[in-house]
Amino acid sequence: MRFLEERILKDGKVFPGNILKVDSFLNHQIDPAVIREIAEAFYQRFGQENVTKILTVEASGVAIAVMTAGRFGVPMVFAKKSQTKNLSPDVYSASVDSFTHGNTSQIRVSKSFLSPEDRVLIVDDFLALGNATRGLMQITEEAGATLVGIGIAIEKGFQGGGDEIRKKGIPLESLAVIDSMDDEGNIVFRS
Amino acid sequence: MRFLEERILKDGKVFPGNILKVDSFLNHQIDPAVIREIAEAFYQRFGQENVTKILTVEASGVAIAVMTAGRFGVPMVFAKKSQTKNLSPDVYSASVDSFTHGNTSQIRVSKSFLSPEDRVLIVDDFLALGNATRGLMQITEEAGATLVGIGIAIEKGFQGGGDEIRKKGIPLESLAVIDSMDDEGNIVFRS
Repeated sequence: MRFLEERILKDGKVFPGNILKVDSFLNHQIDPAVIREIAEAFYQRFGQENVTKILTVEASGVAIAVMTAGRFGVPMVFAKKSQTKNLSPDVYSASVDSFTHGNTSQIRVSKSFLSPEDRVLIVDDFLALGNATRGLMQITEEAGATLVGIGIAIEKGFQGGGDEIRKKGIPLESLAVIDSMDDEGNIVFRS
Repeated sequence: MRFLEERILKDGKVFPGNILKVDSFLNHQIDPAVIREIAEAFYQRFGQENVTKILTVEASGVAIAVMTAGRFGVPMVFAKKSQTKNLSPDVYSASVDSFTHGNTSQIRVSKSFLSPEDRVLIVDDFLALGNATRGLMQITEEAGATLVGIGIAIEKGFQGGGDEIRKKGIPLESLAVIDSMDDEGNIVFRS
């Protein structure tokens, strides 16, 4: 999707260690117009699939998920990363290694909010190794729900997580796929 | 605001320890139509105040903030939570005790995204003791930005945090203020 590639080239910053910072518009400061375009693109791709629920993981995924849910006219659910007093112990959970944070966390979704009747669209801002996405896939499967597809804003294609998921035959739509980037800030998108 | 009070009575659940669960529509599963109404109510209240930035804290605040930012046509920024005390010098930070999580965390906003020119509207899903809100107020002040007001979805009025902020003369709009609730699930709203 051209609009997102253009915005990445304009406002994204590359740091050593394959870190792409898009925190001026996507995951710290957030431009709601960009999120709305992302939601619209997901709707164009998956709008005919009778999606009943949008699923993501906190925190920056929440912005994309709520706008996407609004476009589809269905609820969204976000997996939580920590055990809190107001999360029931009755949860689906998965273990997720974080590339960005360098740690492992449990992500959890209350069993009340995913069921075998659900047709789930997973969305997130980033996909690199695909750990968070696989965690959400695992939770969807545990719930017995149908995974309709996956919508990602930015995929770091060179880290392989996206292609691994595609090999399983799961519809994965990434609006910008980065095939390479270097420390001079050059970014090459998959065409 | 009637719509939110009605939804709380319909779908909210009260648990011992003054816990109100609204996780079926506000902070785990999220109904985007409710969030859109909340954003609209904040716009009706603060739309004439030349707001330049919506500020919240991860994670459930993000949904309300991005919809509110879309309604105002301005960016939103969410403060990040981190357990580490090692703060880089390029962030504004505040220490926040969490009622829900039973711990203390640092919340941080990159200095790139708040400046003295900004007119800030703080939004969040909940206000109880007001710790998170005060942390966001502190960050706004550190940045030298102007605090235009605060928009909260649900205020637990009996915990006093909201009235303490109002006493300082800060415009605080809570769409539903709970004056009391008991373990039988009875909820009394402030009129």
